[in-house]
Amino acid sequence: MVQQLNDFIELNKQRVEEAMEDYLKQMSITNRLSDSMNYSLIAGGKRLRPVLLIATYQSFEQSFHAKTLSSAAALEMIHTYSLIHDDLPAMDDDDLRRGVKTNHIRFDEATAILAGDALLTYSFEIIANDSLLTNEEKVELIRMLSEKSGPKGMVTGQILDMKAEETGCDLETLEQIHALKTGALLTFAVLAGAILAGATKKQLDALENFSYYLGLVFQIQDDILDVTGDEEKLGKRVGSDEENNKSTYPKLLGLSGAIAKKEHYVSLAKQSLKEADVNEASYLFALTDYLTERDH
Amino acid sequence: MVQQLNDFIELNKQRVEEAMEDYLKQMSITNRLSDSMNYSLIAGGKRLRPVLLIATYQSFEQSFHAKTLSSAAALEMIHTYSLIHDDLPAMDDDDLRRGVKTNHIRFDEATAILAGDALLTYSFEIIANDSLLTNEEKVELIRMLSEKSGPKGMVTGQILDMKAEETGCDLETLEQIHALKTGALLTFAVLAGAILAGATKKQLDALENFSYYLGLVFQIQDDILDVTGDEEKLGKRVGSDEENNKSTYPKLLGLSGAIAKKEHYVSLAKQSLKEADVNEASYLFALTDYLTERDH
Repeated sequence: MVQQLNDFIELNKQRVEEAMEDYLKQMSITNRLSDSMNYSLIAGGKRLRPVLLIATYQSFEQSFHAKTLSSAAALEMIHTYSLIHDDLPAMDDDDLRRGVKTNHIRFDEATAILAGDALLTYSFEIIANDSLLTNEEKVELIRMLSEKSGPKGMVTGQILDMKAEETGCDLETLEQIHALKTGALLTFAVLAGAILAGATKKQLDALENFSYYLGLVFQIQDDILDVTGDEEKLGKRVGSDEENNKSTYPKLLGLSGAIAKKEHYVSLAKQSLKEADVNEASYLFALTDYLTERDH
Repeated sequence: MVQQLNDFIELNKQRVEEAMEDYLKQMSITNRLSDSMNYSLIAGGKRLRPVLLIATYQSFEQSFHAKTLSSAAALEMIHTYSLIHDDLPAMDDDDLRRGVKTNHIRFDEATAILAGDALLTYSFEIIANDSLLTNEEKVELIRMLSEKSGPKGMVTGQILDMKAEETGCDLETLEQIHALKTGALLTFAVLAGAILAGATKKQLDALENFSYYLGLVFQIQDDILDVTGDEEKLGKRVGSDEENNKSTYPKLLGLSGAIAKKEHYVSLAKQSLKEADVNEASYLFALTDYLTERDH
């Protein structure tokens, strides 16, 4: 199953990367802005969100369909814009991301701000222009994508996270921050895939729970890797959370407490998948295991 | 006509401001982010873009319809986000806007970046959620709004403008920059109003020309006011273009040359309105005169 999952991830990563490349070409602009957008988009990464979207679609429809690609690419563009803005000097002030220079270091701050703005805006255009989608699907995807990435979702997570970095926070607030900052886009991934596959309301509700737990699993593992991980595999420095006195699961619960918490959420995530009638052979189960065991 | 136009502007300004207030309330979040979004949204301004959208609608349909409000408010939110990001230290580094502190001075840089991101994202959600619109209308409005405000429109205008500020530019490049940086959102205003009123393809083409010329009229008058304007009425310093050695119409053509150019575009704008079968008693004619004669 592990090899099969790796092949699935690799195949769909390629599909999404090709789609993003095509979308960038369709802009028909070549200047500092498109160079800067392109630089961060092709900088790699796990492409977890688009792969999760396609895996959810295929847990209902078995085979791949190209109508998943616009929302998968749009989602990755929004994730990328959020990283570009997060890395800015006024925010996390990071010089390196995935082992290469961050956007504002490679270009400049103004260009990085605008490249983020452009990726965010373009993501809605991509969905609105996809001839494989019905108008009803487009509206539902755009409604959900703006809700999850905007002030009701990711951006508020970012604001709360900044505050927590100054003042510290308790476990409840930490989970609220993660649910918004990371979880909201994962929820979009799962629900978008399910909606495109025609899932029922009951299934969507169960999948929303799944994505909530999966987001926490992902985040706890992130925190754990910052304590126990390998810098080379991660492509970033470890131990920075502790240095920055950041509220994390290991800090609030101890390392073994964090691991136990993660296992608890893994079981809740899988239970939600069963409630959504997702087959245990589906990639969503394997992806959940993959995320809890990942070393980068 | 002037009094009538002023009443029309005032009435629709109020409608749009109330709608924006409602939309912000519907977010149901109260924190530093919503405060910061709200701060810049209520900071005033001419509300030219939403008023232009409603005026275009009413040049076809005579009476006001609430279905214009979501795109009018979304447009003003996108305009506001662009101002917040433009004012940042990495961009124009402005401390004052419309006589009050800019967003990053009142809050901080990180909050200002995120408030801009949130306003941009929320604008698409507002249109996607408007129950007065058909799915077809929503998709067309969102498609156009993302195109005009994104990398094919406003954001590229901003990048080209930054480059021109460093190197200077000729008249052709100056017009291209304005067409993207300011014109693209004015085009959205006009086309959105016309589409909601069911204008024909031929009318839309003529109106797109109208919006192009109107945008240049608006920009030339801006440049002229920076030479001849009254600081108190403008709410900002004059003479800054010359100080910054910025390429402007008065610089490239002289003051009288700039005025002549503006008059030329006014007549082309009005000719385009006639080609779109817009009645001469419509507010679009009066708005064109208003924009060319404005003192702030």
